[in-house]
Amino acid sequence: MISPQAVTAYAPATVGNVICGFDVLGLALETPGDWVTVRRSGRARGLRITGITGDGGRIPTDPALNSATVAVASLLRGTGRTEGLDIEIEKGLPLSGGMGGSAASAVAAAVAADRLLDTGLAQDEILRHAVVGERAAAGGAHLDNVAPALAGGILLTRPSARRTLVGLPVPPELTIALLHPRAELRTEEARAAMGDTVRLADAVAQWGNTAAFVHALHTADWDLLADALEDRVAEPARCGFIPGFGAVRHAALTAGAAGCGISGAGPSIVAFCRGTDQAAGAGEAMLKAHRAEAGPGATLYRSRVSARGARIVSASGGGP
Amino acid sequence: MISPQAVTAYAPATVGNVICGFDVLGLALETPGDWVTVRRSGRARGLRITGITGDGGRIPTDPALNSATVAVASLLRGTGRTEGLDIEIEKGLPLSGGMGGSAASAVAAAVAADRLLDTGLAQDEILRHAVVGERAAAGGAHLDNVAPALAGGILLTRPSARRTLVGLPVPPELTIALLHPRAELRTEEARAAMGDTVRLADAVAQWGNTAAFVHALHTADWDLLADALEDRVAEPARCGFIPGFGAVRHAALTAGAAGCGISGAGPSIVAFCRGTDQAAGAGEAMLKAHRAEAGPGATLYRSRVSARGARIVSASGGGP
Repeated sequence: MISPQAVTAYAPATVGNVICGFDVLGLALETPGDWVTVRRSGRARGLRITGITGDGGRIPTDPALNSATVAVASLLRGTGRTEGLDIEIEKGLPLSGGMGGSAASAVAAAVAADRLLDTGLAQDEILRHAVVGERAAAGGAHLDNVAPALAGGILLTRPSARRTLVGLPVPPELTIALLHPRAELRTEEARAAMGDTVRLADAVAQWGNTAAFVHALHTADWDLLADALEDRVAEPARCGFIPGFGAVRHAALTAGAAGCGISGAGPSIVAFCRGTDQAAGAGEAMLKAHRAEAGPGATLYRSRVSARGARIVSASGGGP
Repeated sequence: MISPQAVTAYAPATVGNVICGFDVLGLALETPGDWVTVRRSGRARGLRITGITGDGGRIPTDPALNSATVAVASLLRGTGRTEGLDIEIEKGLPLSGGMGGSAASAVAAAVAADRLLDTGLAQDEILRHAVVGERAAAGGAHLDNVAPALAGGILLTRPSARRTLVGLPVPPELTIALLHPRAELRTEEARAAMGDTVRLADAVAQWGNTAAFVHALHTADWDLLADALEDRVAEPARCGFIPGFGAVRHAALTAGAAGCGISGAGPSIVAFCRGTDQAAGAGEAMLKAHRAEAGPGATLYRSRVSARGARIVSASGGGP
């Protein structure tokens, strides 16, 4: 087998927290996503970023600060490889949007490098390197973004547990409507808004909700899903950072969405809908409400949950 | 149909919290349990307690303080009935043991009264009256005991949600070993040991555990069940009240139990076992460890999860 000269991988946007599961639930969309190409540079060593598109020139091109290159550097270190690599990033995801943008680039880069170098890593090893990349860019490792960007689906992510990742069933009709305001919200800032403690009553309600959510997924019980998709912990602390949040949420629920809340650390707002028609209606209502409260400029995404997460999209200049 | 003159109902012991779901999970055992007989007194009105056995004379016989009579009084009020009733309680459950004793008596009394008076109440109405009884006796309403004592199974109980009760699947092999020390621990005291807040990191781990627990029940994944049965919130605050707790827990896990923790507010200690043989082995190990650390006098119970909860066991002196 001849190794390829360049490999391009795609990794999708992800919704961290999934409203009711702060830091332990995440899901992958089909679109949008990021594409990362890793190419042999012909030099003996060293990583370069040779191009970034779709970011408006704002993602760090310093390989030590960019989630994609940090992930690849970790993979090279971890596998004992030395190879000069050029990395090109095509951002389909907005920056600091609460859609797992840095995670998607890190995952796509690690997946592409694994294939290019034929390192044959297991999924949990690729995950580990992507987490290193994510940590460099986002100031913390968010397994609830990195893991679903890699594996797809709806995942339960428990960093302190023995069984770190658990895939949950996806109700067939589930469709996500996601509104991305023009605004940005840095994850660190959103985190800092939350204290180190939670009121016991809110915590009890929250673990009741996460438990109900998992049961609702298993039974495709949409009524229970709606009753579980409530965030007692992060949303009260963060929603003030997101202009128009209350109106957008109200509009989504009025349009029939099962639940609506902050995507990841925000400022994107996510709605859980039953079928594409409901998602279309809820999405339009969210856009309209947002425009009225916060002005124009928001983008709406609609997507099913991705069953597969990151994938190779092309390998050129060599064998498969 | 001729109404009976006396009805006896049985309600089983329950395990509140189910280790990982403080205040939101509860399960019913098959045995032990309490029996309550409600009998027409022939008087026009008034509740009397005509006998209590199995309590060592320590349960209040004042109808205003006893969970069984308070539940029946609530049922009479709620249904607009006036009838003189005599109530007899046979306690199979230890007092203040963390096994839902006051809940079992309240539930059995409400179920028996409903049948005796042919009030034909729906389950959620009977629940409501039993909760009133439980509150009078235990200084708070513990849905995670009352609800499974009534309905059986493993229940998700969320008092502040719209869908208050959700039945969860029971893995066929699940067998409970439960050690009741001679000691008692009043629920109010165990509650007071917990503060009003939880560290965010512990809360996150806890809702990760409850979510994993529900998934493990649905998939009968015993490895995940073991990884989920951890209490980051109540156990650290309460285990100091229970002599020998650490040694008993260690013994249960060493004997193969999937998880071991405090039953309800304690002092009973519960182990989740896969099959009756494992429960027998874990139970013996728990007893032995407890004897070594805290002296003799503990009682061991072993039971499957009850599929049906409370039930009528006899109706006499009239038609069914």
